[in-house]
Amino acid sequence: MPELRRDPIVGRWVIIATERARRPSDIAPAADPPQPGLCPFCPGQEDKTPREVFVAGRPPAAPANGPGWRVRVVPNRFPALKIEGELDRQAEGIYDRMNGIGAHEVIIETPDHGRPLKDLSEADLTDVLFAFKARVLDLRNDTRFRYLLLFKNHGHLAGASLEHSHSQLIALPIVPRQVAEEIEGARRHYDHRERCIFCDIVGQERKDRVRLVYENEEFVVFAPWAPRSPFETWIVPRRHVSNYEAEPRERLALCAQALRTTLRRLAAALGDPAYNFMVHSNPLRDPASPSYHWHIEVMPALTQVAGFEWGSGFHINPVPPEDAAEFLRKVSG
Amino acid sequence: MPELRRDPIVGRWVIIATERARRPSDIAPAADPPQPGLCPFCPGQEDKTPREVFVAGRPPAAPANGPGWRVRVVPNRFPALKIEGELDRQAEGIYDRMNGIGAHEVIIETPDHGRPLKDLSEADLTDVLFAFKARVLDLRNDTRFRYLLLFKNHGHLAGASLEHSHSQLIALPIVPRQVAEEIEGARRHYDHRERCIFCDIVGQERKDRVRLVYENEEFVVFAPWAPRSPFETWIVPRRHVSNYEAEPRERLALCAQALRTTLRRLAAALGDPAYNFMVHSNPLRDPASPSYHWHIEVMPALTQVAGFEWGSGFHINPVPPEDAAEFLRKVSG
Repeated sequence: MPELRRDPIVGRWVIIATERARRPSDIAPAADPPQPGLCPFCPGQEDKTPREVFVAGRPPAAPANGPGWRVRVVPNRFPALKIEGELDRQAEGIYDRMNGIGAHEVIIETPDHGRPLKDLSEADLTDVLFAFKARVLDLRNDTRFRYLLLFKNHGHLAGASLEHSHSQLIALPIVPRQVAEEIEGARRHYDHRERCIFCDIVGQERKDRVRLVYENEEFVVFAPWAPRSPFETWIVPRRHVSNYEAEPRERLALCAQALRTTLRRLAAALGDPAYNFMVHSNPLRDPASPSYHWHIEVMPALTQVAGFEWGSGFHINPVPPEDAAEFLRKVSG
Repeated sequence: MPELRRDPIVGRWVIIATERARRPSDIAPAADPPQPGLCPFCPGQEDKTPREVFVAGRPPAAPANGPGWRVRVVPNRFPALKIEGELDRQAEGIYDRMNGIGAHEVIIETPDHGRPLKDLSEADLTDVLFAFKARVLDLRNDTRFRYLLLFKNHGHLAGASLEHSHSQLIALPIVPRQVAEEIEGARRHYDHRERCIFCDIVGQERKDRVRLVYENEEFVVFAPWAPRSPFETWIVPRRHVSNYEAEPRERLALCAQALRTTLRRLAAALGDPAYNFMVHSNPLRDPASPSYHWHIEVMPALTQVAGFEWGSGFHINPVPPEDAAEFLRKVSG
């Protein structure tokens, strides 16, 4: 059973997930990217994964867990957290631990083994974003979970262990620090000014334009003021929406357009880099918030976390966001 | 001029250090480790670095910036922060920035190009730890600096760009978040219990012994309760000392013994992994604190920071610290 442990000094939680150690890439840096081959995410291999929890595109008459799908969501075979069991909090002397209860699912974004996310059509990418929403709407009914993080690791250097394009979700029994700090920072801003800080940021970026990369009717794409890594890029709804799952399909289509443009321009600018993206949204079951604003953070994996970053929490970034944004505005994606 | 920028939502500072982009390893992941060759850290190459600010072992009669040294400290040729200039805080709309004032120095740990830190004698390693102390004592006189982080990147996967064994220090105009959170967490514990939390941890680890790796008269080495990565290992003084620079040479010699044992056992257990270590100490010029306790955190670079970690601040660790400690107790270093 995986376990959540809390650092007694700073309150940081860590997932001790022993069963993932069966994946060699978790305990030793792999010298080469994982090889393609018998891919469990390919059509016809549906029995190599746990049974699907969501599917898009398969004809109604076709049997479940067979081919014919465009997007398929399955539980992770090597989950960081386990779906079964009760939350159980315990002390061990001065330390705290909790059962590692949670959901860990894989969103298989396309049946096409060799097609990266950026090369999906807007309609197919909209299906992926809709699958994200469908999983949030389902998993928020499980009251053991307080937060759901959607994220993608693309490329070996960004932590992907399988080549076939996929993203992941982890539902957690607590709101993670990183998100809690964002929510808290946004709430402080709201308490002082009665405005959402993300709305203020969107306003300043659309006015300054030096960090702006792209915008459409509903979404704005920009390099954030204080990026942790070169070419970090955020995709933020122009109107105030706190919960990702509140977005209707037609706005997810515009989000897909913004995300697709972002990924294609990053690929063109940087030579198809490894990257991560994360969807930050309001905690599960929290009502719409006037101070929080969902968004996507895209981080190309171009620099390494080293001693200074580990020890300080500071990041050293050699590329000013204004330079990155100018580059991404000019490149054709 | 490098620049410090503050994220307006969570208050995280980032160093925008454009001049470091001249180092290709900063903007693109290098396929191969940097090659040896004309090494600027080797004896006889002293003119390839800025002028030394500290040296150990050179006979008094020998000229400065020539060979004959055992440890040599020089300013970094590609500094993340600049030593010249005034602190200057500015707003840009809703954003904050600050001149990137600070010191960035390199501690060349040995004249021997091919000798890793773990293979130094205890006496030579004590010289290195004493050089750390000497630099803290010097740089704390500069009142622009509030914090000094000592750290080491060993191996390409841990961010080292030169093979010749060295560590680094960065003096900062602010106390970094990671350290501020530690200090704040320790203070909260002290306010409740009138005890240092690190002393409590040392007590529990010496009693439980399941996470203990090694101890001598003055230092204890253990796997922390909630390690961020497999085989994370802490070296903590057994007696309460808040400031690294308060340690006399004879206790630094025992610290060297503990550090050397730790690095040798990690190398034996994991096949000479890349690693980082960070020295966490009280902020510069702060008086001895009853609640804070300096220590060294050693992190082998075995896992990658991926989307889940970036998005949540949670870490997933496949190796329980009890298993790592047992392994490190049994291996001969």
